[in-house]
Amino acid sequence: MTGTSSAAPPTSVVPQTNTETTGAAHQDSRLLAHALRVLAMDAVEVARSGHPGAPLGLADAASVLWGEFLRHNPADPAWPNRDRFVLSNGHASMLLYGLLHLTGYELSLADLKAFRQLHSHTPGHPEYGRTPGVEMSTGPLAQGLAAAVGMALAERLLAERYNRDGHVIVDHRTYVIVGDGCLMEGLSHEACSLAGTWGLGKLIVLYDDNGISIDGPVSGWMSDDTAMRFAAYGWHVVPDVDGHDLQAVRVALQQAVADPRPSLIDLKTIIAYGAPLKAGTAVSHGAPLGVDEVRAVRDILGWPHEPFVLPEKITQAWDARPAGAAAQAAWQARMMAYAAAHPELAAEFERRLAQRLPHEYETVLEAALGQARQDARPMATRKASRLMLDAMAPSIPELIGGSADLSESNGTEWTGSRSISAPGQPANYIHYGVREFAMAMISVGLARHGGFVPYAGTFLVFSDYARSAVRTAAMMDQQVIFVFTHDSIAVGEDGPTHQPIEQLPSLRLIPNLDVWRPADRLETVIAWQMALEQTLRPSCLILSRQDCPRVTPQDMDLTALRRGGYILQGNQDGAAAQLVLAATGSEVALALDAAAVLRRKGVAVQVVSLPCTQVFDRQSVSYRNMVLPPGVPKLFIESAASAPWYRYVGGCGDVLGIDSFGESGPGAAVLAHFGFTMDHVVNRAQALLAEGG
Amino acid sequence: MTGTSSAAPPTSVVPQTNTETTGAAHQDSRLLAHALRVLAMDAVEVARSGHPGAPLGLADAASVLWGEFLRHNPADPAWPNRDRFVLSNGHASMLLYGLLHLTGYELSLADLKAFRQLHSHTPGHPEYGRTPGVEMSTGPLAQGLAAAVGMALAERLLAERYNRDGHVIVDHRTYVIVGDGCLMEGLSHEACSLAGTWGLGKLIVLYDDNGISIDGPVSGWMSDDTAMRFAAYGWHVVPDVDGHDLQAVRVALQQAVADPRPSLIDLKTIIAYGAPLKAGTAVSHGAPLGVDEVRAVRDILGWPHEPFVLPEKITQAWDARPAGAAAQAAWQARMMAYAAAHPELAAEFERRLAQRLPHEYETVLEAALGQARQDARPMATRKASRLMLDAMAPSIPELIGGSADLSESNGTEWTGSRSISAPGQPANYIHYGVREFAMAMISVGLARHGGFVPYAGTFLVFSDYARSAVRTAAMMDQQVIFVFTHDSIAVGEDGPTHQPIEQLPSLRLIPNLDVWRPADRLETVIAWQMALEQTLRPSCLILSRQDCPRVTPQDMDLTALRRGGYILQGNQDGAAAQLVLAATGSEVALALDAAAVLRRKGVAVQVVSLPCTQVFDRQSVSYRNMVLPPGVPKLFIESAASAPWYRYVGGCGDVLGIDSFGESGPGAAVLAHFGFTMDHVVNRAQALLAEGG
Repeated sequence: MTGTSSAAPPTSVVPQTNTETTGAAHQDSRLLAHALRVLAMDAVEVARSGHPGAPLGLADAASVLWGEFLRHNPADPAWPNRDRFVLSNGHASMLLYGLLHLTGYELSLADLKAFRQLHSHTPGHPEYGRTPGVEMSTGPLAQGLAAAVGMALAERLLAERYNRDGHVIVDHRTYVIVGDGCLMEGLSHEACSLAGTWGLGKLIVLYDDNGISIDGPVSGWMSDDTAMRFAAYGWHVVPDVDGHDLQAVRVALQQAVADPRPSLIDLKTIIAYGAPLKAGTAVSHGAPLGVDEVRAVRDILGWPHEPFVLPEKITQAWDARPAGAAAQAAWQARMMAYAAAHPELAAEFERRLAQRLPHEYETVLEAALGQARQDARPMATRKASRLMLDAMAPSIPELIGGSADLSESNGTEWTGSRSISAPGQPANYIHYGVREFAMAMISVGLARHGGFVPYAGTFLVFSDYARSAVRTAAMMDQQVIFVFTHDSIAVGEDGPTHQPIEQLPSLRLIPNLDVWRPADRLETVIAWQMALEQTLRPSCLILSRQDCPRVTPQDMDLTALRRGGYILQGNQDGAAAQLVLAATGSEVALALDAAAVLRRKGVAVQVVSLPCTQVFDRQSVSYRNMVLPPGVPKLFIESAASAPWYRYVGGCGDVLGIDSFGESGPGAAVLAHFGFTMDHVVNRAQALLAEGG
Repeated sequence: MTGTSSAAPPTSVVPQTNTETTGAAHQDSRLLAHALRVLAMDAVEVARSGHPGAPLGLADAASVLWGEFLRHNPADPAWPNRDRFVLSNGHASMLLYGLLHLTGYELSLADLKAFRQLHSHTPGHPEYGRTPGVEMSTGPLAQGLAAAVGMALAERLLAERYNRDGHVIVDHRTYVIVGDGCLMEGLSHEACSLAGTWGLGKLIVLYDDNGISIDGPVSGWMSDDTAMRFAAYGWHVVPDVDGHDLQAVRVALQQAVADPRPSLIDLKTIIAYGAPLKAGTAVSHGAPLGVDEVRAVRDILGWPHEPFVLPEKITQAWDARPAGAAAQAAWQARMMAYAAAHPELAAEFERRLAQRLPHEYETVLEAALGQARQDARPMATRKASRLMLDAMAPSIPELIGGSADLSESNGTEWTGSRSISAPGQPANYIHYGVREFAMAMISVGLARHGGFVPYAGTFLVFSDYARSAVRTAAMMDQQVIFVFTHDSIAVGEDGPTHQPIEQLPSLRLIPNLDVWRPADRLETVIAWQMALEQTLRPSCLILSRQDCPRVTPQDMDLTALRRGGYILQGNQDGAAAQLVLAATGSEVALALDAAAVLRRKGVAVQVVSLPCTQVFDRQSVSYRNMVLPPGVPKLFIESAASAPWYRYVGGCGDVLGIDSFGESGPGAAVLAHFGFTMDHVVNRAQALLAEGG
C-alpha cells in the first residue's frame, strides 16, 4: 500500500530489460506487444484521428493478459463461459481492435485501416454490436469498470445457482483495463465499493497508472493513494508493477487470479511508450503522433515492417483460435454432462441465455392481469408494480432487482426475494446502497453478461445521477428495466429537490428507450409486461408515490394498452370529439374527472391515455390519428415540463405542465398550487375551445 | 484508522455518562441537545411527515459544533466572514431549523410548527433562499458536501488574494454534516479527493456514522473502511468518536481545527437516539416516531415540557446573537482598517461580494464585440469562447474557471490564467481532473460562498454526469456558467458515446437555466456577455468543436442578439415570408445556405437564429410573433433531439433533428448521414411548402 498514483512513472521510453525474462522468448513476447503498438499507431495515422498514447503504454500488459490469461474463443464471441474483457478507457480502442484482429476475431486488416470511418467495424470508441468481441461500448469514463462489476456479479450469481458438484459450467473471470480518468470519476467509487463488499474475487482490474491525463501530469489534480483507497474497499491490491516488465505483469496477474478478493493491479506505465518525443506527455493522448515520430518509434522498437504488414511468426503466435476452440469444446462437453445430470437446470440456464421468458410466464401474467382487472381500489402505481413483482418474480429467475437504498419506497424488493446482503441462498435482489449511477451501470453489466433481466429502482428525480448509464443501456440495446418512483410534485413534503419536473420528458428524449408512465394497476401490469418482453432496448417505469384512482374499465381491451396510447373514453355520443384531453399516469384520472364536467357542459370530449409515447409513435399513422385526431383541439395534462408535448398538439392545443421547480407541502396542496385540479383543467379546456372555436 | 463504517454503533439508547464531563455543566449541555431533539421530533409529528432519526442522533454533536465552534451572526446570515455550515444529509432538515431557531435566526416557533407546509419557511429539505441561515439546498445526497468543498476553496482563494500582513479579512471555516448516503455516492469521492489534493484545512466534515440507511444496517452494502479511504485522499481523520459524548466531540473538533488538512470526524452515533423502540433502526429514518414513542423519548431524556415549549434557560443558553454581533463587529473593524490600508483591494473585495462587474468590463466587452464584428473567419465557437476569455478574464478577477480534464478542448484555460495545480500566485483556474459532477457542485459552492463567478467546462455529452448539479444551481438561482463544448454529431470520429443528441434539449427543460448555443464568434461574445450579466440564474454555453462560418453581418444590431432569437435575414423583398428557416449554433449557416437556394427558386424565406430560447421566451408576444410569424410554415434545424422544437412550430412546420444515436466517422460524413446538408434542408423545406401550401 505504498503506491501512489502520482508517483513518477519509469522515465525511460525504451524497454527495461528484466534479467529473469531476457532471451529469445522474451524478445518474442516483446515483439507481440510491439505488433499491437504499431497497429494502433498506424491506424491512428491513417485516420488522422485517435488516441495512440494509451495503446502504446498498455501493449505490454495487454499482450500478457490476452496471450497468457484470457480464456476466450475468437470464433465464437458469444461463448457464454468466456472470460469478459472490458476496456474502460475506451479511447484506447485501437488497442482492443489490435487484440481482436491478432487473436483471430472477424476483424480484418482492412477493418483496422478503416479506423474511425463511417460505418466501419472500428469506430472511434468501442461499440457493442459493431465489432465482434467488443463486450461494452466505452468512452464515458468509469462506465466500463462499473459494467464489469455487473458482469463479475452475474458470473457469481449464475455459478451459485447452476454449478453442481462435479459440474462446473459457469466459471470465468472478468478483466478490465482502466485509466486515471476512470478512477477519478465518482462512479469508480460506487462500483468498486460494491465489488469489495460483494467479494467479487474473479474481477481483475488493470490500472494504467501512467500519471498523465489530458490536461497533463495528474499529480496536480489526483493525489489519491489509490492502493490505499482500494484496500479500504476490501480489495487485493498489487502495487507498483512495472507495466513494461512482462514477467512482473505475469506475476501480478497470477497473484490476482489466486486471491479471493477483487484485485487491482497498479501498472506503472509510460503513455506513448516508445515514442522518443511524446512518451510520458499529454500530447500523445488524443492526437496522431505524426509521420516522424511514428518512424522513430519503429526504429526504437526494432520494427522494420511497413504499416499493416505483420510477419507470419507474429500472427501465428497471436492466434488464439486453436486454444479458444479447445476451451469452448471442453466446456461444451461439460455442458452435455451437466444437461444429462441436471436436465431442468440446464434447460433453464440455456433459456435464460437465449433471453426467452419461462413457460410459466404466460400463466402468471394472465393471473396478474386478471387480478388487476378485478381490483377497483385506488392504488399507487409503485404499489401496483410491487404487486406485479410479487406475482411474477418467483417464476422468472432471471429477474434480478435492486434499489439505491429505497427498496420499500420503490416497491422493488418483492416478497420472498433473497438479498445479496444476506447469507444463504443465491441472491436475486441487490441492495445497492445510495449509488444510483453504479446501480444502473451494474445493471447494464448484468444484462450484457447474459442470463439476467435486471431492474433498478430509485426516485425519478435521482435518475439524473444515473442518466448517462440509462443512455448507455439504450445505446447498447440492453434490456434493463428502470423503476423510477415518486414521479411528480405529488411527492409533496419532500419538496423541490425531490420533485421531478424535467426528468420524465428528458428521459423520453433518450433514443431507443421506452418510457412507461402507467395510470393505474392495470396499466402498470401492461407496462411491466411490455418491459419484460422488450428485449431490444431498456424501459423505464415511471410510478406514482400517491394512490391513483382506477381509470381503466374492467373490460378494457388490453391490445389498446399495449399500443402505448389509446382512447380511454371516446366521445360518448359516438359523434366526433370537439376536444381531446390527453394525459399520462396520475393525471389520467384528472382528465376523466374534467371530461365528465365538460360533458355536462355539452362539450364532446375524448379522453386519451398515453402511457408510453415511444410505443405509441411506433403505431400506424391511421391509429395515431384516431387516438389524437388532427384538427381537434387537444389539452395535454402531465405534471412535468411541458415543451415536448407540443409535438402532439398540432395546430390547436395547449399543455398543462410545470415549467418551474416544485414546492414543499402536502401533495394535494402542491398539486392545487400548480393547477392540477379539476376546475383548472376545465377552465383551460374551455379557454382552448374559446380560442380554437 | 481502525474505524470502519460498518462497526456496530453503541447499543444503548440513553446517554453514556462520561466522567470528565459529569456535572451540572454537562447536564446543561445535554439539555441543549435535547431541545434540538424534541423540536425535531415534535415538528415531524405535527407535519406527520419527515425524518426524525438523524436529528435525534446528531443533536449532541450539533450542539457542540453550533454552541462552541461555529462563528456566525444570526442577525446577519449574509455576513461574508461567517463560518459556513452545510447539512449535506438534507433530510435531517429539522435539526438545522432547530439550530437556526434556537441560535436566534429569524425563524420562529410558528415557522417550526409549519414544517413541511406549503410556502412555509421550513420546507421538507433545506432550501437556500427560503430560510434565513440555510446556505445550501440539500437532499440529493453528497451535493452539500461537494458544494462545501467549493465554499472552502472560495475562502482559501479569497484569503490568498485579499489578506495582507496584519489585515486578515477572510478567515472562516466550512463545516459539513454528512450521512452514510453522502459517502456512498460517487460525488463524495470526486469532491473529497480534490479537497485532499488542495489541502483545504478549513474544511471539517462530521460524519454521522450511525450504521443505518433507509434499507437497514449499512453493513450489507457499505463495508468501506471510511477512515482509510479518507486517509488515502490525504485527509486528517478523527476515528471512532462517540457522537453522544460531548467532550469527545469537542476534542475531535479541536483536533480538526488544529490540523492543516481537511478533516473527517467519524461520529459513531445512534439513529433516533433516545427512542426506546426505534433507536438504531431504519424505521426511524423517514417517518414520524408516533405519539407513544415520542412520549417515551421525553421520559428518557427527562424533558418534561410540552411540544414547542422551551424553558428560558435553554433559549438563553442557545442564543448566539450577542456573540455573533460581537464577532461581526470585530470583523467590520478589521475591514475598516483594511480599507484604509488597502483601499483598492477593499473596493474590489466588496464589489465582488456585491456581484457587480468591474468598471473595466464595459470597455473590454466593447473591444471584444468590436473584434468579433471585424472577424470574418470561420471559427469554432469554442475557440470564439476562448478568445472572449482571453480578452475579458484578466479584467474580471472573480471569474474562476475550470474544466474536467479538457482544458484545451473546452477552451476554458485562458492565456495568463493561473492554475490551482501550480505553485505561486493565487489561482483563478481549476484543473478538476475527470470529475464532472464535483466540478459542477464545487462551482455552485464557489458561487454560493460569494465573490466568484465560476465557469466549468466539459463535453456536452458528459453534462449528463453533472446534470443534477446543473439542476441544483438553477434551483438555487446561482450564477454558474457551464461551458459545454463538442456540441453535436459534428464531433465526428469519437462516435456515439461522445456525440450529444438529447443533452441540449434536455438542458433546456431544466427550469431557470439559460441555454445559449451561439452560431458564430459574435453570437458567442453576446452569449458570454449575457451569462456574465445574468446573476439570477446559471447559464450554459453550448459550443461547437468544428469551425462555423460567420453568419452575423458586420453591422449586426446587437440588441436583437440579446433577445435570444432574432431575424437574421428577413425575406429580401420586404414582403411577408412564405417560409421560416430557424436554426441554432452550427446549423444557422446551413439555414442561410439553404435559404439562398430557396430564394433562387422563388421562395420568400426568413432566416431566424435562436441562440437562447429561454431569453427569447421572455420577450413580448409581438416580438416573438415577428420573429416566428404564426401561420407561416417553419422548418427548425438543429442537430439534436427534435421533440421540444414543436412548441414553436405551430400549425405547420417541421423539425430537422436527430432522434437516434450518432455514428463514428469524419464530422462532414456524419452530418451528411443524418441529413444536415444543404440539399436535404432544401428538400425538406420544399416538402413542407408542398404540404402546407
